[in-house]
Amino acid sequence: MKNILGENDRTAAENQALFKEKGVYVLNLMGSPGAGKTSLLEKTMEFLKDEIPMAVIEGDLFTSRDAERIEKHGVPVIQINTAGGCHLDAPMVQKTAQKLDLDKLELLIVENVGNLVCPAEFAVGEDEKAVVLSVTEGDDKPMKYPLIFKESAIALLNKVDILPYTNFDLAQAKEDITTLHPGMRVLELSCTTGQGIAEWCTWLRNRVKEKGKRA
Amino acid sequence: MKNILGENDRTAAENQALFKEKGVYVLNLMGSPGAGKTSLLEKTMEFLKDEIPMAVIEGDLFTSRDAERIEKHGVPVIQINTAGGCHLDAPMVQKTAQKLDLDKLELLIVENVGNLVCPAEFAVGEDEKAVVLSVTEGDDKPMKYPLIFKESAIALLNKVDILPYTNFDLAQAKEDITTLHPGMRVLELSCTTGQGIAEWCTWLRNRVKEKGKRA
Repeated sequence: MKNILGENDRTAAENQALFKEKGVYVLNLMGSPGAGKTSLLEKTMEFLKDEIPMAVIEGDLFTSRDAERIEKHGVPVIQINTAGGCHLDAPMVQKTAQKLDLDKLELLIVENVGNLVCPAEFAVGEDEKAVVLSVTEGDDKPMKYPLIFKESAIALLNKVDILPYTNFDLAQAKEDITTLHPGMRVLELSCTTGQGIAEWCTWLRNRVKEKGKRA
Repeated sequence: MKNILGENDRTAAENQALFKEKGVYVLNLMGSPGAGKTSLLEKTMEFLKDEIPMAVIEGDLFTSRDAERIEKHGVPVIQINTAGGCHLDAPMVQKTAQKLDLDKLELLIVENVGNLVCPAEFAVGEDEKAVVLSVTEGDDKPMKYPLIFKESAIALLNKVDILPYTNFDLAQAKEDITTLHPGMRVLELSCTTGQGIAEWCTWLRNRVKEKGKRA
């Protein structure tokens, strides 16, 4: 296990060096199945695609359903099928990134396999990680799955439009998240109503400015 | 990887032989984080604990929050903390089962780590597997995570009380599930309204009768 992680880390460092050289800010987007990662990407493209040259790498076990959703927005998207594997790793992203014209990109979002556990353990060469948690998953999830919250730069509490139909305690969840990761940015989002999307895009735009070509 | 699975399978077979000898029906309950596995267990105990002698093994990465919820119902529960591991395995369950009085039990439910990928790959010695999918996770999940649906004897579509606030297509999800696993039992559930709980308990009661001490 240590060997696998060590080898992955070496390739992740190579990826990171390449992305840095090309001035591309890379975000590793993680969350449970159905947390709303692809919906969030669709909203993000709607707001930012004309402003920031971006591409998407879509991680999935088998299908290309998510990639097809992204493609409709006219943003370059490459699918990685893990053939049952529970997370993306750095070699997969290395191989895939060769197919992208990195010179023309400023933002690359890597949507990981839907899984709140394993993706947090494998760097893919990203600048930062983000975790999407749907409020329908329950407010106990940060404490039960702490690593992904400790590893991520931002936590996106999604589907807040259906908060009234759940017993999710927003204050408790935020408290737990900032206990796990003091100072972490936490945003409330709804891809249905659009709540929080502008703030999310501002956060992302600033990251691209600070760490990408425009830095 | 093949070696790990082979070793796990050997221990799973030992567990299965022990459970069979003791006449205990064992269900491996799986699903994403927040699909509602623990809530379903709470409902199940409410209906069946006075009728069927049962125990629960709770799999979690770190906390004992779920075990505490089960304990309140007066059912024996043992917590397995995987210390970050993304699934339970047969050796963990073997070690834990030694602490249970199997002679007195007819039903053992093993709640796996919240994860729609890895738990499906590791038998723990169960008679059957069950998968809980919350409708808030999206109707594309069966096709995106096929193994867990192929491996399970029953699929429980949970949180149908909030179906009107989602874009989940119930007919499509059922069609996809039965395409993946023809003849699979699919139930619509709500642990909030109680919808489907009686049917679920009937299914479980019949399994215990067919495969447990009463067989």
